[in-house]
Amino acid sequence: MKRKTFGPVTSQQVAQIAGVSQSAVSRTFTPGASIAPATREKVLKAARELGYRPNAIARSLNTARSRIVGVVMSYFDNQFYPQVLETLAQKLDELNYHLLLFVGDRDGNVDRIFDQIMQYRVDGIVLASVSLSMELSQECVAAGIPVVLFNRSEESGIVSSVNSDNETAARQIAHFLLAGGHHRFAYVAGIADSSVNQARQKGFTETLHRQGIASVHVVQGNYDAEQTRRAASELFSVSPTPDAVFAANDHMALMVMDVARYEFGLRIPEDVSVIGYDDTGPSGWPSYALTSASQPVEAMVQATVALLMKQIDSGTIEPEQVVVPGQLVVRHSARRPQAGVVEKDGVSLFQLQEVE
Amino acid sequence: MKRKTFGPVTSQQVAQIAGVSQSAVSRTFTPGASIAPATREKVLKAARELGYRPNAIARSLNTARSRIVGVVMSYFDNQFYPQVLETLAQKLDELNYHLLLFVGDRDGNVDRIFDQIMQYRVDGIVLASVSLSMELSQECVAAGIPVVLFNRSEESGIVSSVNSDNETAARQIAHFLLAGGHHRFAYVAGIADSSVNQARQKGFTETLHRQGIASVHVVQGNYDAEQTRRAASELFSVSPTPDAVFAANDHMALMVMDVARYEFGLRIPEDVSVIGYDDTGPSGWPSYALTSASQPVEAMVQATVALLMKQIDSGTIEPEQVVVPGQLVVRHSARRPQAGVVEKDGVSLFQLQEVE
Repeated sequence: MKRKTFGPVTSQQVAQIAGVSQSAVSRTFTPGASIAPATREKVLKAARELGYRPNAIARSLNTARSRIVGVVMSYFDNQFYPQVLETLAQKLDELNYHLLLFVGDRDGNVDRIFDQIMQYRVDGIVLASVSLSMELSQECVAAGIPVVLFNRSEESGIVSSVNSDNETAARQIAHFLLAGGHHRFAYVAGIADSSVNQARQKGFTETLHRQGIASVHVVQGNYDAEQTRRAASELFSVSPTPDAVFAANDHMALMVMDVARYEFGLRIPEDVSVIGYDDTGPSGWPSYALTSASQPVEAMVQATVALLMKQIDSGTIEPEQVVVPGQLVVRHSARRPQAGVVEKDGVSLFQLQEVE
Repeated sequence: MKRKTFGPVTSQQVAQIAGVSQSAVSRTFTPGASIAPATREKVLKAARELGYRPNAIARSLNTARSRIVGVVMSYFDNQFYPQVLETLAQKLDELNYHLLLFVGDRDGNVDRIFDQIMQYRVDGIVLASVSLSMELSQECVAAGIPVVLFNRSEESGIVSSVNSDNETAARQIAHFLLAGGHHRFAYVAGIADSSVNQARQKGFTETLHRQGIASVHVVQGNYDAEQTRRAASELFSVSPTPDAVFAANDHMALMVMDVARYEFGLRIPEDVSVIGYDDTGPSGWPSYALTSASQPVEAMVQATVALLMKQIDSGTIEPEQVVVPGQLVVRHSARRPQAGVVEKDGVSLFQLQEVE
């Protein structure tokens, strides 16, 4: 007697929809198995439509976990990422997992990285600082591999992510600069379609607009030192120069400070205030003393590892979006407002009084 | 008819010397196999004595290469190492190898890292920035895994290494400072028993002594930011303060500059010249403009990968010590001598006239 079940989607159903053999479905989700790209594409498409989770198959074919987590990262010259990498390796190590590093092409060939990830039978993936996070992460999820986006997110919400509260922090920066009596505002943007850049730009400009600031001079630094140098030169060549600059990350903010001081002879913060985002190593060095919105590396990495392990252990991928609160760390690169700066454990923080 | 051969040492011979079963020898060299630590120790000792190379066994048991190279690294806050890591990952990727990252304990538990390396069946290992390189690398070599020491070496010469020409570069720095008319010299040392620190200290102090400088004030920064802050404070608290400081790496030199300027109000280079070693990212930032001996990351990583691949492909471990020449990049953190600084491709370099 046949029993009718309402269980999870089967590989047979995927094969039927995709118009391929069941073996082709199996091979698509078997690390290292041979499969024609066109066939794989059909299978992945059908799997996505049906919400097929091939974890069980992958597990049965390969019962032992690799205990390897793939990490796709770029921008190693931005000190935030090495810090993240070191912390991630240590936290994974505590759980007896290890970290296989993939350096993301800034132009990003997704297929190539995906093939490598499959080849190495990783148990999970952390995607940090790659522009192609969305496409790659969807492919991985379709292949049943848990993914966490680090410091970025994608709109569909089908992939887990860990971020700081970008929009709120950027609003706070706008209020800090307004309270400090600034009048001419500029924003040095990261890559235009990166989720964190969009959130930071939105929070900053919207708050300024609401407070009566008609225009914000936006230039593109694209997270790149050389492009930021040019963007900053552009910014300070216009008269009158801005008296308040928010750069979408510290890496760019430090460059803006150097250009302001050494190419334009501007004093910081007397002539221009500069604020960054990340609160990473060099920002605390006395030569910069950068006021910056913190991204708490420890807490963000902890959340990333927890999300990964939950998915790996349960064998199911239920996307969660984690937001880790940060703080505006006040140093000397921006004029301080009369009120709102408090001392806590030897660090100066800006605390917004009103709730928006 | 039996033929007598003079072939390589066999696992039988190792078992006999170690007083264990042949299976114990085999398990010692089989990634992931269970073996009591005390037994493994006996086998490794006998293997070392006999010069036993278990590669063939390991290969036959595990014919497919993992195509994974283990990298043991620490000091991620020193921008030199993230640069090395990124370049290494890219160069390995070009050869379809990948990089499994082990963050070295600064205190360093060798056994733990060794066990992990065996568990992951890596094809080779790069040891960078760990104090315990020697012990770990000897264990790996005994286990038949190719090892390259990066930016360090060990005296026995049984392990391959890639370094810049530390002693020559340090001699050049001494000559540069002497030619710049300095009189009171100081050296900020890295970890005392690290090979690169020893070579840099030797080259610097020997040259100064030979030129009639009786004493060099040596303080310990130990490659650590906080320890360097204290060491620099000590240095500038003594009267008269040194007018020339060579720090064993840029990471420490930048801290020395910040302490000199912001804690002691000293002008650089008018009151004190500071020179570092590595020529890494922040050294070129205008706030520091650090004069520094370059370690050419690209060339050093290229040599490292070439050494590894040669050993992996041949299945034999023949140690080689590679020294990659660097240059003294002249910026503005140290007074320039009247002669000897030349311009090349937009960079200022110091070229020693006389040959020692």
